[in-house]
Amino acid sequence: MVATVRAVVSVSLWLIVSQVRGAYVPPKMNKTIHNLLRHYKISQRELFNGKPVFSKDPLPGEMGAKQVFVGAVLETYDQLLGQMLKQLPTPAPKTDESNGLPASVAPGDNVRTELTYILKKVQELRKHRYQEQEKLLLQLRALKHIQMDNLVVQSKALWELPRLYEEASSLGDIERRRRRRQAKRLKTRQRA
Amino acid sequence: MVATVRAVVSVSLWLIVSQVRGAYVPPKMNKTIHNLLRHYKISQRELFNGKPVFSKDPLPGEMGAKQVFVGAVLETYDQLLGQMLKQLPTPAPKTDESNGLPASVAPGDNVRTELTYILKKVQELRKHRYQEQEKLLLQLRALKHIQMDNLVVQSKALWELPRLYEEASSLGDIERRRRRRQAKRLKTRQRA
Repeated sequence: MVATVRAVVSVSLWLIVSQVRGAYVPPKMNKTIHNLLRHYKISQRELFNGKPVFSKDPLPGEMGAKQVFVGAVLETYDQLLGQMLKQLPTPAPKTDESNGLPASVAPGDNVRTELTYILKKVQELRKHRYQEQEKLLLQLRALKHIQMDNLVVQSKALWELPRLYEEASSLGDIERRRRRRQAKRLKTRQRA
Repeated sequence: MVATVRAVVSVSLWLIVSQVRGAYVPPKMNKTIHNLLRHYKISQRELFNGKPVFSKDPLPGEMGAKQVFVGAVLETYDQLLGQMLKQLPTPAPKTDESNGLPASVAPGDNVRTELTYILKKVQELRKHRYQEQEKLLLQLRALKHIQMDNLVVQSKALWELPRLYEEASSLGDIERRRRRRQAKRLKTRQRA
């Protein structure tokens, strides 16, 4: 009984969410995700255990920073959907070898088509709106490969520090002034 | 002769750069970096081989995105300076054991004091201006630990996709409109 109520609540929630998101998420995409969830099924208890894969907390920082994070989330979906495709059983042959007639569609083939469609939607969004953010993500990752114990790197980095410290202070200052202006504007509005 | 000319050019360049950066880089910091470069000495050929540790190319994206990157650069300096401190020889004892009198200051001790001062300056800047960016960097790194081959993760991520796809499309749209407005403003100015 509890399971049925949970399932009804879950589907209703899904439909409400789908309608609210109509502006950006195409109905075909919503329907495909819904279908896929029948294949990638977990218990309601697991689904709603309060530990989402991607946190719902508001992102810190201003617009540009949020875009960097969302770009990274799309990249993660790209990899995750690729992994899900890899885990599917080998596709069925296009023709039945015994009689040369088209083989019946195996359930895995539908899932493959649906995952491929969702992957394409994610990749299109990345390509058309998140290219700049991806360049920045690459530059961020490159920082992790700096050879910290190398004398040449240490010396060059010391030489470059004034330029970067200057840039960091200046950017931090612009942000502080922006926040002050924002706070002032908010105060003026509240008084009006 | 060539080496002398290079050294003179290098010091002159350093002085010019220091003066230009006077607004944000305190003179003591500039001087300390200059001293440290005597210890972390590499050839002029190595220093100016056109391969800086931190690229000089303008960063892609808008202000918030640049701040995320600069926050990561400061974090890298924090780790790098920590590594440089670790590589120094063990500090000399405060007193000379043979006669109980204060020991003379070993050259490594000066370098340690200077590195510690530079590290403190970097850490202060991080703490006072780049806390939000650091939170975002932590969230970015958490994405790398998502268990992509786990059914529960795959199912949850599918369930969460409409919300995130919506957010990504909406943020991408805001950015596109911002760029259009900027281009329009630029055109109007050019005509005026």
